[in-house]
Amino acid sequence: MAKVKKQPRPKAETPKGFRDYFGAEVAQRKAMLDEITAVYQLYGFDALESSAVETVEALGKFLPDVDRPNEGVFAWQEEDDWLALRYDLTAPLARVYAQFRNDLPTPYRRFAMGPVWRNEKPGPGRFRQFYQCDADTVGAPSVAADAEICAMLSDVLERVGIPRGDYLIRVNNRKVLNGVLEVMGLADPAQQADVLRTIDKFDKVGASGVRELLGKGRLDSSGAFIDGVGLAEAQIEPVVSFLTTGHQQANLGGMGIQRPLGQGGGQIATSNEGAFITPELSGAVQKNILEELRRIVGSSTQGNEGVDELAEISRLLNVQGYGPDRIVIDPSVVRGLGYYTGPVYEAELTFEIKDEKGRPRQFGSVAGGGRYDDLVKRFTGQAVPATGVSIGVDRLLAALHAKGRLDKATVGPVIVTVMDRDRMSDYQAMVSELRAAGIRAEVYLGNPKNFGNQLKYADKRNAPVAVIAGSEEFDQGVVQLKDLVLGAKIAETATHEEWKEQPAQFEIKRADLVAEIQKILAG
Amino acid sequence: MAKVKKQPRPKAETPKGFRDYFGAEVAQRKAMLDEITAVYQLYGFDALESSAVETVEALGKFLPDVDRPNEGVFAWQEEDDWLALRYDLTAPLARVYAQFRNDLPTPYRRFAMGPVWRNEKPGPGRFRQFYQCDADTVGAPSVAADAEICAMLSDVLERVGIPRGDYLIRVNNRKVLNGVLEVMGLADPAQQADVLRTIDKFDKVGASGVRELLGKGRLDSSGAFIDGVGLAEAQIEPVVSFLTTGHQQANLGGMGIQRPLGQGGGQIATSNEGAFITPELSGAVQKNILEELRRIVGSSTQGNEGVDELAEISRLLNVQGYGPDRIVIDPSVVRGLGYYTGPVYEAELTFEIKDEKGRPRQFGSVAGGGRYDDLVKRFTGQAVPATGVSIGVDRLLAALHAKGRLDKATVGPVIVTVMDRDRMSDYQAMVSELRAAGIRAEVYLGNPKNFGNQLKYADKRNAPVAVIAGSEEFDQGVVQLKDLVLGAKIAETATHEEWKEQPAQFEIKRADLVAEIQKILAG
Repeated sequence: MAKVKKQPRPKAETPKGFRDYFGAEVAQRKAMLDEITAVYQLYGFDALESSAVETVEALGKFLPDVDRPNEGVFAWQEEDDWLALRYDLTAPLARVYAQFRNDLPTPYRRFAMGPVWRNEKPGPGRFRQFYQCDADTVGAPSVAADAEICAMLSDVLERVGIPRGDYLIRVNNRKVLNGVLEVMGLADPAQQADVLRTIDKFDKVGASGVRELLGKGRLDSSGAFIDGVGLAEAQIEPVVSFLTTGHQQANLGGMGIQRPLGQGGGQIATSNEGAFITPELSGAVQKNILEELRRIVGSSTQGNEGVDELAEISRLLNVQGYGPDRIVIDPSVVRGLGYYTGPVYEAELTFEIKDEKGRPRQFGSVAGGGRYDDLVKRFTGQAVPATGVSIGVDRLLAALHAKGRLDKATVGPVIVTVMDRDRMSDYQAMVSELRAAGIRAEVYLGNPKNFGNQLKYADKRNAPVAVIAGSEEFDQGVVQLKDLVLGAKIAETATHEEWKEQPAQFEIKRADLVAEIQKILAG
Repeated sequence: MAKVKKQPRPKAETPKGFRDYFGAEVAQRKAMLDEITAVYQLYGFDALESSAVETVEALGKFLPDVDRPNEGVFAWQEEDDWLALRYDLTAPLARVYAQFRNDLPTPYRRFAMGPVWRNEKPGPGRFRQFYQCDADTVGAPSVAADAEICAMLSDVLERVGIPRGDYLIRVNNRKVLNGVLEVMGLADPAQQADVLRTIDKFDKVGASGVRELLGKGRLDSSGAFIDGVGLAEAQIEPVVSFLTTGHQQANLGGMGIQRPLGQGGGQIATSNEGAFITPELSGAVQKNILEELRRIVGSSTQGNEGVDELAEISRLLNVQGYGPDRIVIDPSVVRGLGYYTGPVYEAELTFEIKDEKGRPRQFGSVAGGGRYDDLVKRFTGQAVPATGVSIGVDRLLAALHAKGRLDKATVGPVIVTVMDRDRMSDYQAMVSELRAAGIRAEVYLGNPKNFGNQLKYADKRNAPVAVIAGSEEFDQGVVQLKDLVLGAKIAETATHEEWKEQPAQFEIKRADLVAEIQKILAG
């Protein structure tokens, strides 16, 4: 009850980079999350909802700027602690598992869905709060866990409405890359990091770009010269072979969903260069890829272990019917290779959409994940094997919209208009009956004076039917029904004469209200 | 890829006052929110999901400490702005309505559900992040909108599993109280505020306590003397009459759900004094209450308007079948009277539970709301009528748990154990078949060496069935099924002899796997 001094009016605006979701948007996302939940549960995963707020300490100071721990995250100080909003669902999982490991089953299969926050510069289509939807298996060392996540991801995509053929899950392995680095004789961690960073640009610059960047350097599209890593041609060759195995041409044009820290995972990162070439999908080609990789990693123990894992994943998936029309081994998957420690997987939608300039391009990535064995170690000192996937829910919704598989708006309620304020309880009785029959319905509760406003309201609500009754109708035991869907169709196509006849409005007996409206809704 | 210096291990803990929700907890809340959503939608309400982060300016500096706008909220500075986590769902609604008022229908019926955050001292059962679930009608001046919210709240409670008779929705009106203040001749705003503050304690101190606090003062239970407002007996009488109209004794013992700012609305506030007396529920008593109120407000215009509104709400609800067994006029509802501008309503669960000391007490409040016409005005200068309710989801879940209407854990997946690592694809094939039949199932993906661990895992997951097959079984085309539900029952009651017979484990043909497990699950 404290008095507030007079001050200028506050602006009614979301903070920059935040947005609101209305009606159909919320309902469609919820429906999608429900479908994904059903698949996750079928696979034995259990829900986890961790708190949105974590200590910065638990999240990890993943950026080196210690004076400003809130770089990249939204953070604030509370006494001696810094608290922050979670930036993904994996860091909280690591904290939860470390905290409750004695009570949780091992392996722990959990799924989580909810908003995450990134303190990044907002841009078009790039928000600072967005949804993630993850499933992870913690404590399972076997690649059977990775294979299972890939199979589940495939089931999820088909369940939410992406038909087989419109998507492809591509699997790679960090260990194979480690084998390649070993074969190159690259033992210096700094140089290894340079190579990893360069490989990460493969999606953007293609094989020739990677070749230049690993060597002397490259003129980028803006005209600036980017210094190269300075490797010899003999060292560069195995890397490029690794990336392009099984491809006629560099695989380009992805839009990345990834989980590595502080890199905007789960959001859009466009690529403008090159064209996406789908890898060949036959089992024979898959076998060739594995053989080729084995050749590239030579005698590297880790490299061979990586190829063995890919072969085992491929075998497990094939016997379950997830063939190369759905899931393929593809060394060109580079996203997150610096972050993951074993198998890496990414789901791409392979159909074309038009970009903002009307040019066709692949829709790109909607989910990604892999194996990471170090996250829990930060807390406990013990390495715990874990593998999991993150689905970019908003990207997946955008894909369904792009394919015309989601409606713009949901059907609104039946609107009972108010002709006579004193009959409010009669109008309320009508909606009670409709609701009892499971029909969305409401009485118009604005100022009823202007009847046109009531019909405009019904329009805006996307109402299928308006009910109209004044004292005359009440006296006769009838009501008027206005079929607004039919009315809209007539308004678009009818002549003035036809329009005047108003066949979309008709009189029914009051007693038949529910049955007549059910008839319209069914039609 | 920046290197992090060696540092002590982070603590794996949520920040104080935050918690995680696991498995069944998440699933049960989701199921409840789905039921509530269904009712809200049936009444024509549309979903809104506003951003979790708002500018402090938009939320309102509801506490006077301008130097620290984060008092009560979690806030942080970003360039010139302060941002904060929403502390309820009403303030964001006001911002959204002001921002999008030209595009939104009027009236705007929206529901919202999600976490809100309070920067308050945590305590037992009192968290700094909790769920709210609101429905509001913005732009509807008629009390038909208030009546409708009360009816909807009644439907919601019955839908989620609170039977009629176990709850009561009580309705009061701020305007009647204003009438009382007018009759008392209390024009001084500071004194009016004192009276409102005192009335707010009615739930805790009862009628005699309010009488003392409005007069000379009162010795509280800790022995401290609380100064009174200093009113004369003739001024005190109408207030006490107002509060106790229709009650034999003061109505005490509520646990408050309320929406006023910064007061912990939606969470638990216990009361230890007095005993709850259910108001009498007959239509005649309701009529008497209205007559009594009319007598108390005398010639006050606003007071009479308030009584008229209560009478109209009562009439509208009665004709729709929401009689005084579900919704009553009750002037003892005082929560939020300082905040709301018209009708105020509160839902209480009337059954008894045992408190932490084993004493019986009313469960108390699970939802509250009312009419507030000023929230949007902050932004636009125009008063916009609004009325709405907030349901304390966690309280409602606690109530269903207290009544034994929710299970502790959900049924886990069927666990296919691993006797022979080399048969992994055979085990995977089994779970594929089970999932295809809609049965939750998984292969054990931990280290399979210790078979006892696998059964312990199945136990921990609350698995109904374990599937067991080694090379011998594979050779014979059979598998072993272990009915873990039956097994647990036998373990509890059986003698050692019976136990040894292990009737809960039996062999079936591999081809009958799905059918046999379906049989167990059905039983």
